[in-house]
Amino acid sequence: MIGIDWGTTSFRAFRVARDGTIRDRRAGPKGILKVPDGKFGDTLREEIGPWLAAGEDRILLSGMVGSRQGWKEAPYLPCPAGPAELAGALVDIGFDWARVKLVPGLSGTDESGVAEVMRGEETQVLGVTALMRDGGIACLPGTHSKWVRVEGGRITGFTTHMTGEAFSALRGHTILARMMRDGPSDGVPFDAGVARSGEPGGLLHHVFGVRALALADRLQEAEAPAYLSGILIGHEIRAALVRAAGAVVQVIGAPELTALYAKAITACGGYAERHDGEAAASGLALIGEQARWT
Amino acid sequence: MIGIDWGTTSFRAFRVARDGTIRDRRAGPKGILKVPDGKFGDTLREEIGPWLAAGEDRILLSGMVGSRQGWKEAPYLPCPAGPAELAGALVDIGFDWARVKLVPGLSGTDESGVAEVMRGEETQVLGVTALMRDGGIACLPGTHSKWVRVEGGRITGFTTHMTGEAFSALRGHTILARMMRDGPSDGVPFDAGVARSGEPGGLLHHVFGVRALALADRLQEAEAPAYLSGILIGHEIRAALVRAAGAVVQVIGAPELTALYAKAITACGGYAERHDGEAAASGLALIGEQARWT
Repeated sequence: MIGIDWGTTSFRAFRVARDGTIRDRRAGPKGILKVPDGKFGDTLREEIGPWLAAGEDRILLSGMVGSRQGWKEAPYLPCPAGPAELAGALVDIGFDWARVKLVPGLSGTDESGVAEVMRGEETQVLGVTALMRDGGIACLPGTHSKWVRVEGGRITGFTTHMTGEAFSALRGHTILARMMRDGPSDGVPFDAGVARSGEPGGLLHHVFGVRALALADRLQEAEAPAYLSGILIGHEIRAALVRAAGAVVQVIGAPELTALYAKAITACGGYAERHDGEAAASGLALIGEQARWT
Repeated sequence: MIGIDWGTTSFRAFRVARDGTIRDRRAGPKGILKVPDGKFGDTLREEIGPWLAAGEDRILLSGMVGSRQGWKEAPYLPCPAGPAELAGALVDIGFDWARVKLVPGLSGTDESGVAEVMRGEETQVLGVTALMRDGGIACLPGTHSKWVRVEGGRITGFTTHMTGEAFSALRGHTILARMMRDGPSDGVPFDAGVARSGEPGGLLHHVFGVRALALADRLQEAEAPAYLSGILIGHEIRAALVRAAGAVVQVIGAPELTALYAKAITACGGYAERHDGEAAASGLALIGEQARWT
């Protein structure tokens, strides 16, 4: 089968063998925003034509391709949900001779009952559930970071944190903008920001402190973004871990980001294991297996 | 004597009698940014000419007028400092026949040793210390809110929170911008935001939840700014009160803002008393008295 994690800005396809191993892979920038005039089928033929020509006829898609802005809208499936529930809720798409199906996103609530939705992350998390036998937590860092709770191989709930986007807004549109220029995202300033997030005063005070350190020449302009990032990521992690001290967190995403998060999670008293984008391939294979596609 | 709280965007002058009562007042938009070519003396003559003509010859200034961008720079005085220390560190300015002096700002550190400075707020806080006999906390809400600790009539330390500015950055420069339009700053949505700040998940998660509630039609576009504001102000207050549960907080500032903060402080388990801009007049009179000017 072919599994594709098709997001807003990226397209990652995997050719998966019957035993679940990845035989081939293809990644590019053809996210759904780059697909002209809703021509998803044409884009698919351009991207994975040779695999189709070789006889692959089962294609499973996850991610924003199943949103209103995507190929076809797949309604959110409520939590708790695992591979069986997702396999039972796949949405068919007509496409040439091949069978194309969409993995639906999930809906749930946070601990206080506030609604949450995800699309694509559910498949990546399922790809690492083999490592979470007794349940656990997965973290998918980014513009809108997700923290996902897993029990018995199923996703039971999740929360979203506006970390990446808050960083950009504070970095670019406050008094801090004047005392920053681009610099390395990792290093001593990042660690200092993570440590700062554990001190008294709260996020809004710690963020203001970037200015104080810069004015006192204790933080260079090129160090300030990493320090601010450490403060925000540290606050995100501490809030997410507050009821799960000592938890093992499966961190899924691009290597630069999972490296930062893994280090920060350790600094905040948790344990982290890192996974890259191939978690999506494993998740798609698991759902395909449940759908008796492999 | 004449006391003037001269800030970045506002000018508030008070004519104070020997017994400390306010005989006359004048307020306008002539903040230091509106003074052309450093002509502070001319501006002073325009604003309070009649009082000078009536024979007043002692003028005490506080606020950003004592900054590098102001009339003359008054070096920060380190905490702890009260009326006596401030009176002993006044900075003279030459001006016609009158004696004009600047109240210096204060420098200090937060609980973790990070540097902090203020200019103008110290004078307002001293204006309400009569209500804080055994020490206490004052809060000056705004773009950069200050929380000030007072012991024995002296300011011992303070912290700044980037609450107002973070609100503007998140309101205008994140995904939330699309789901908001201007609306009342107070009301049920504000209270809901303050309550939300006490739930698990942390600030970055709560902020993202504005979107979730809007998508679920549980928050109207014109209600969303007040809800976001309640979340941020609630987080600021909870962090500031964490080691001072049940404290009485003297809230000083413009009436709209002190009303919001007083309500939120009560909701977060504290007690609040509200003061408007005349706290500065009382503080200036107290410092003037120490300088034997009244």
